[in-house]
Amino acid sequence: MAPHPVVEYTSEASWAMIEDKFSPYAKETLAKVVKFLEDEILPAAKVAHAQLPDDPVKRWQTVIPVVTELKAKAKKLGLWNLFLSKAHYPEFGVPLTNLEYAVIAEVLGHAGPIGPESMNCSAPDTGNMEVLARYGSPEQQKKWLIPLLNGEIRSAFSMTEKNVASSDAKNIRTSIRQEGNEIVINGHKWWISGAGDPRTKLHLVLGKSDPNNKSEYNQQSIIIVPADAPGVKIIRPMKVFGYDDAPEGHCEIIYDNVRVPLSNLVLGWGKGFEIIQGRLGPGRIHHCMRSIGAAQASLNLMLQRVTDPSRKTFGKYLYEHGDSSVTCFSTADSLSSQELSLPTLRSLALILKIDKYKAKGAMKEIGIAKFVVPSMALTVIDRAMQSFGAAGLSQDTELAARWAGLRTLRFADGPDAVHIQQVGQRELKRAPGLVKKAQELKKKEEAVFAKYGLKAHL
Amino acid sequence: MAPHPVVEYTSEASWAMIEDKFSPYAKETLAKVVKFLEDEILPAAKVAHAQLPDDPVKRWQTVIPVVTELKAKAKKLGLWNLFLSKAHYPEFGVPLTNLEYAVIAEVLGHAGPIGPESMNCSAPDTGNMEVLARYGSPEQQKKWLIPLLNGEIRSAFSMTEKNVASSDAKNIRTSIRQEGNEIVINGHKWWISGAGDPRTKLHLVLGKSDPNNKSEYNQQSIIIVPADAPGVKIIRPMKVFGYDDAPEGHCEIIYDNVRVPLSNLVLGWGKGFEIIQGRLGPGRIHHCMRSIGAAQASLNLMLQRVTDPSRKTFGKYLYEHGDSSVTCFSTADSLSSQELSLPTLRSLALILKIDKYKAKGAMKEIGIAKFVVPSMALTVIDRAMQSFGAAGLSQDTELAARWAGLRTLRFADGPDAVHIQQVGQRELKRAPGLVKKAQELKKKEEAVFAKYGLKAHL
Amino acid sequence: MAPHPVVEYTSEASWAMIEDKFSPYAKETLAKVVKFLEDEILPAAKVAHAQLPDDPVKRWQTVIPVVTELKAKAKKLGLWNLFLSKAHYPEFGVPLTNLEYAVIAEVLGHAGPIGPESMNCSAPDTGNMEVLARYGSPEQQKKWLIPLLNGEIRSAFSMTEKNVASSDAKNIRTSIRQEGNEIVINGHKWWISGAGDPRTKLHLVLGKSDPNNKSEYNQQSIIIVPADAPGVKIIRPMKVFGYDDAPEGHCEIIYDNVRVPLSNLVLGWGKGFEIIQGRLGPGRIHHCMRSIGAAQASLNLMLQRVTDPSRKTFGKYLYEHGDSSVTCFSTADSLSSQELSLPTLRSLALILKIDKYKAKGAMKEIGIAKFVVPSMALTVIDRAMQSFGAAGLSQDTELAARWAGLRTLRFADGPDAVHIQQVGQRELKRAPGLVKKAQELKKKEEAVFAKYGLKAHL
Amino acid sequence: MAPHPVVEYTSEASWAMIEDKFSPYAKETLAKVVKFLEDEILPAAKVAHAQLPDDPVKRWQTVIPVVTELKAKAKKLGLWNLFLSKAHYPEFGVPLTNLEYAVIAEVLGHAGPIGPESMNCSAPDTGNMEVLARYGSPEQQKKWLIPLLNGEIRSAFSMTEKNVASSDAKNIRTSIRQEGNEIVINGHKWWISGAGDPRTKLHLVLGKSDPNNKSEYNQQSIIIVPADAPGVKIIRPMKVFGYDDAPEGHCEIIYDNVRVPLSNLVLGWGKGFEIIQGRLGPGRIHHCMRSIGAAQASLNLMLQRVTDPSRKTFGKYLYEHGDSSVTCFSTADSLSSQELSLPTLRSLALILKIDKYKAKGAMKEIGIAKFVVPSMALTVIDRAMQSFGAAGLSQDTELAARWAGLRTLRFADGPDAVHIQQVGQRELKRAPGLVKKAQELKKKEEAVFAKYGLKAHL
Repeated sequence: MAPHPVVEYTSEASWAMIEDKFSPYAKETLAKVVKFLEDEILPAAKVAHAQLPDDPVKRWQTVIPVVTELKAKAKKLGLWNLFLSKAHYPEFGVPLTNLEYAVIAEVLGHAGPIGPESMNCSAPDTGNMEVLARYGSPEQQKKWLIPLLNGEIRSAFSMTEKNVASSDAKNIRTSIRQEGNEIVINGHKWWISGAGDPRTKLHLVLGKSDPNNKSEYNQQSIIIVPADAPGVKIIRPMKVFGYDDAPEGHCEIIYDNVRVPLSNLVLGWGKGFEIIQGRLGPGRIHHCMRSIGAAQASLNLMLQRVTDPSRKTFGKYLYEHGDSSVTCFSTADSLSSQELSLPTLRSLALILKIDKYKAKGAMKEIGIAKFVVPSMALTVIDRAMQSFGAAGLSQDTELAARWAGLRTLRFADGPDAVHIQQVGQRELKRAPGLVKKAQELKKKEEAVFAKYGLKAHL
Repeated sequence: MAPHPVVEYTSEASWAMIEDKFSPYAKETLAKVVKFLEDEILPAAKVAHAQLPDDPVKRWQTVIPVVTELKAKAKKLGLWNLFLSKAHYPEFGVPLTNLEYAVIAEVLGHAGPIGPESMNCSAPDTGNMEVLARYGSPEQQKKWLIPLLNGEIRSAFSMTEKNVASSDAKNIRTSIRQEGNEIVINGHKWWISGAGDPRTKLHLVLGKSDPNNKSEYNQQSIIIVPADAPGVKIIRPMKVFGYDDAPEGHCEIIYDNVRVPLSNLVLGWGKGFEIIQGRLGPGRIHHCMRSIGAAQASLNLMLQRVTDPSRKTFGKYLYEHGDSSVTCFSTADSLSSQELSLPTLRSLALILKIDKYKAKGAMKEIGIAKFVVPSMALTVIDRAMQSFGAAGLSQDTELAARWAGLRTLRFADGPDAVHIQQVGQRELKRAPGLVKKAQELKKKEEAVFAKYGLKAHL
Repeated sequence: MAPHPVVEYTSEASWAMIEDKFSPYAKETLAKVVKFLEDEILPAAKVAHAQLPDDPVKRWQTVIPVVTELKAKAKKLGLWNLFLSKAHYPEFGVPLTNLEYAVIAEVLGHAGPIGPESMNCSAPDTGNMEVLARYGSPEQQKKWLIPLLNGEIRSAFSMTEKNVASSDAKNIRTSIRQEGNEIVINGHKWWISGAGDPRTKLHLVLGKSDPNNKSEYNQQSIIIVPADAPGVKIIRPMKVFGYDDAPEGHCEIIYDNVRVPLSNLVLGWGKGFEIIQGRLGPGRIHHCMRSIGAAQASLNLMLQRVTDPSRKTFGKYLYEHGDSSVTCFSTADSLSSQELSLPTLRSLALILKIDKYKAKGAMKEIGIAKFVVPSMALTVIDRAMQSFGAAGLSQDTELAARWAGLRTLRFADGPDAVHIQQVGQRELKRAPGLVKKAQELKKKEEAVFAKYGLKAHL
Repeated sequence: MAPHPVVEYTSEASWAMIEDKFSPYAKETLAKVVKFLEDEILPAAKVAHAQLPDDPVKRWQTVIPVVTELKAKAKKLGLWNLFLSKAHYPEFGVPLTNLEYAVIAEVLGHAGPIGPESMNCSAPDTGNMEVLARYGSPEQQKKWLIPLLNGEIRSAFSMTEKNVASSDAKNIRTSIRQEGNEIVINGHKWWISGAGDPRTKLHLVLGKSDPNNKSEYNQQSIIIVPADAPGVKIIRPMKVFGYDDAPEGHCEIIYDNVRVPLSNLVLGWGKGFEIIQGRLGPGRIHHCMRSIGAAQASLNLMLQRVTDPSRKTFGKYLYEHGDSSVTCFSTADSLSSQELSLPTLRSLALILKIDKYKAKGAMKEIGIAKFVVPSMALTVIDRAMQSFGAAGLSQDTELAARWAGLRTLRFADGPDAVHIQQVGQRELKRAPGLVKKAQELKKKEEAVFAKYGLKAHL
């Protein structure tokens, strides 16, 4: 029997471990995703780039035609909203476990941003759809969720604030207050992904509605703000290493006395913290899986480069030079495609726990993958860039843009430091149990010494 | 339902991944191993040390009483020869897959060398039993294999040669020649593990029987040499750092005109290379799993140390200092017990492939774990040593001896370099397929450009 | 006595080592550079940025007013062409040793690109002026060198070729041939720094004039090509990450039957290789010193960030989190400003050798600094970026642009790999001498053993 | 003129930097040290080893004859007590700066422990002689210092305590109390270097004489305890990775009601902390320099190994394999002999500051070298071990013993963590000055913006 086509995209090692956990539907869907990637998405990537104008104004007003076409095709093939697991969202979801979708995310990581978008699986829409599916009122779902699920509109999640250490949500300063039947919003946000896109129709805005509430976790609320509401001022696109990531972008926004109806409150007053906690989760691991896919794709490019006869210098292939860019061939520190299986397997094991225990409990482990995977992927891509020389940093390969995008993952959803500390804290909690075991061991040990008429030293 | 007790010894992540691949017998045996470790092996470790004399002569003549007692207990409990899989050795083995035994090896890694020995699972006996079980004549099996399987005798594997780069087996110089009904052996070996033990009754000796054979892989043969045969001269124990590892030791040996009967030839003339290739394999991964167990045990010691109130300096616990010894609590480069799950999962995935594909194919992947795991384990143990200060390097903890023992794994069965190069070579073989795919992609891409009336740049 | 103001910019450690090697003139000039940096250059950096239009066409036609002003001021203060050492260029140079200028370069590294430019010390003009000063004919010097020395025009060095592994100069394909009194040039170059600048009046173009010459080192020549010569086609600016580095840029250029007079040949036919060898040298170390300055400046930014009360999260300063971005405060792997003194001192020692031995001999050591310093500086800046979160990657700090610029140094003037291999080759040459010494030692050792009536083992 | 012979032992880079700071006497002495190393010390190293009995009792009663001979020769040549700088100890010292001696220490690092001992420059005697020379009474100097300076006796420094985190000297528990004209000492120490040597006649013992003194820094005193005083009980030698380092050793000692005359108090009651602060200092850097010498010597061994034709495997020299053991030849992470110049130069710069500023001020920087150099040296030696395979870990090369010895430096005189934190603390102190400068810069910047009629963004 031929091996499943995914084996060319994920490590054989992980596939060997998880194959028997995949349903027939999941295997079939995964095979279709691989085919769609190869036949449709990858061939469209450069066209999408060419269809985006250079003009600094027009590039923010463009809906890229080839992406629209891809979306139509994917929808027809049933490769749509695969991120939404029926187990968690019975009404809207597809019958895929988080584990099964994780491998799909890894495969899509081989494409650039158009990959997830063409299958309606791109952030921040995914998280926003999860919020609306879980917490939205029927009215909110009808007005905003359905068009999002249909891929007709896009959305932004408006949390990070300028001049505020907002990775600690308690520091949020945006003000949300009720005035009669209206909610009034004032705040200064930035790095709001998706806010630049002409298709974006709503922002989910986090702010403080009850700053004096004695529980720090009940001071925040989330409001649906129409993108075209008066007072929503897009100041400028933020750049990442010179990239503006148009048309989605990451924008600086001022909400200046924005007024929306009371029905735009999500879930209830003071529920903001609860919502953002629920919003993260499997999504982080899916980010990780996409990172691994991106690293794998970069490694594949590198392999072609270092074996390219036209790149020989001093009579040798690039891979024959002891170059740090090609260390995967020659040093112990290397990350070969086989080594990438380490974080892959770790991520898959985590997601498996999420599936088993419905996130609770497993959720707290997610941080580990969160700080390990992006660093590993960045290293792999950096080596690939080095193998391409200056071309590897330029617009002629996708490597530099990929690296820049991944670099943001080291603080998106909390900087590495926060996740690392949490891992450490959990380790420390193991100590008392170990001490108790060591004391029991000491007693048993003394009994053995006594039995042999010896005296234990120390 | 209470979680399986192994969860305290292996990572939760890996157990989540593999639990459903374990038979009821395997789960039960694993639980018994954990209990035997805690109740019998660990309490005996320091006694075993105390029962070994300091005297430089007597320590090589000692059979440690508490180890003999442990062996009797383990045999009675059925925790015996678990390394030998019935799937590969139907006549002698136990019904455990390599995957199932791998986790047992990880658990045993928490004990020092007496762990494997007490369950008759210690090298080089394990590999030698595999050789005799697979390739031995009925007579050889009766005379040598059965007592080995019973734990009555021990054995040595005599391959490495002095002043020879013998990690390339083709460089072997020991001469083996037939004279009438006898085989005559002359050679100078060193680092022959187990040769110092008073219970060792046989050496499997690799040498060149046909140095002019045009196939370099058919020049070697393996001969069973009784440890007390005239001409077997133990020159000295080699030390690893300052350890002599008595009573087994790693000895320098001269075979000076040693004569054995023709029936001591294993498998046939010129079969030496084939035998040593078969001898390695799952054993390497079991070494890796034991290394991971040793690292985990060291981490557990460290956790107790850094939370020990009596070790506070300048008013802070050790874990509160930004110490590289306790980086598991504070930095991105850390290896926490949860990070150890990376190589664990990788190793388990490999061993699973061995089980699935009967070693062929999977075997060639083993080198990856071989060069990744020991380095990782060494790093973890080095950090644990640092947290203990000078005590961590001394005879008062097991850390330094563990580190020294693991350090040899970076060249035992081939230095890291060889394994790394082989990984690289396999990566390179992926290149032509990638180039072909890239060419196909280019064609599809041009079609999309054409469809939109655009011209592809480059 | 007050310490020299440079101590705030270079490590105290290096200043302690080199202070007594500085002439009074050098010390005074260095103090003036520090003052000019603080009073003029740094305050102008953001203005320069604001004076560059966003428009994709106009930004390549702009001469930034504030830079023009800075140049006038620097010239008046005598802070002009300081890179050109009178020892090497008696006619044009200033009385500074390479060592003395190296520290000036380090100080200028604290500014962005406008720093060197404002003092007429920016690449590729510096190297081109060196070429023309050393190898140019009087006519060439008058026409091109003098305006360059006056800062009236700028220049490009046109070596790297598209689709050619041109870090091995022997692979160059650009064709240069004589036709009567003219030279005809055809070739496809890219990454030609400075070619986008409206002030650039000449390109020094490397090509093959005698491809069949039996010496591979005599096939190349260098020709002065006026930037406005017919057939010089600027195809596009190459980007580094998303930066175009306008107005200088790094351009793709086609030389399409470009014709120049015979007098534009530099030094002579077949002298191209000799010229580029001479062109590199101290300049590489000055690059390194600037990198160190850039890293130091980034570290200074980070220090302010991690001690900023407004960035506290969870009640702690950033430096109190065990963050990898602030590891300079907490881990053994850290690079603090004091650690930066390692590569600084190494670079200074190298440059000192160049001064002592007039480059020959010392030159071959330059590669070491070349591959060590940029990697170290990149690590420091990456940590600084992490401490700033997303802002650190954006247009709001200079960190990301600095990182991107430095990343190119890992292959500019030869990739790390080439330099690493050369270091290795030189190490290998030490082996025979060591073997000889070891043999002599053995004899002496045997004599001592004999004297004491002992027998040497081994 | 022939280069100074030291160039083969220290990096050319550092010699270029410091040569002009060496007096003619220092240069001449350094040349004599090199010659003495090559002609006398190195040839005696293995003899010294052979003259130490294996017997676990006798090895502690032996004065090694060849070392005694070396000492006599060195004394005659004036290569004696070179560690004691006349600038600091006018009465007893030699006219060498700390910088000049630092290079001597580097050269001696090429030998094992007999190197420093043969020239009466070995720890802990060096520090003890400094204590007695600076703080001893005339009577103490006559009785103990003079025989030490003559190399007739040896000594121990008794500070580290068992079961106490004594790297924080305030935790010391050993009790020192006056009873009439006597001092009574009770305490439990371990890791007391030199205490095992039959020539050791005195211990300098640190203990608490005034535990209730309100200043934590005035509670400790130091007492001279004759090694043969009743109540001085040597419990056992501590081992480091299996090595006992006989005959000096590192011993566990109980002081059980030891009584000494009041005149054995050093400097005065409560002066213990002051003395140990003064005792450390240049000595730490000299340790570093010796480490660098040891690393260089290991690298030299490795170079011979990897170019040894008899070690070829698979047709290649070891250096041709992409082996992590030989990465100095092939990877960016490598440490070649030229890279060793980084920490060398750093250490030399530090010691130069000590010379300039008489330790105060400079002293606090010493920690940097303290945590950087040993780790670097350990890495180099580990690579050398790997290149030798198992032989590299055995008694047949000096590598493993060297590695084990250096490993202790990562906590001797304070663990890495403490030094790292101190470096971090000093960095933080730079922040307020930087903030102030940044504010001044902002004002200047606004003026430039205003001048050009622009508005500063942000």
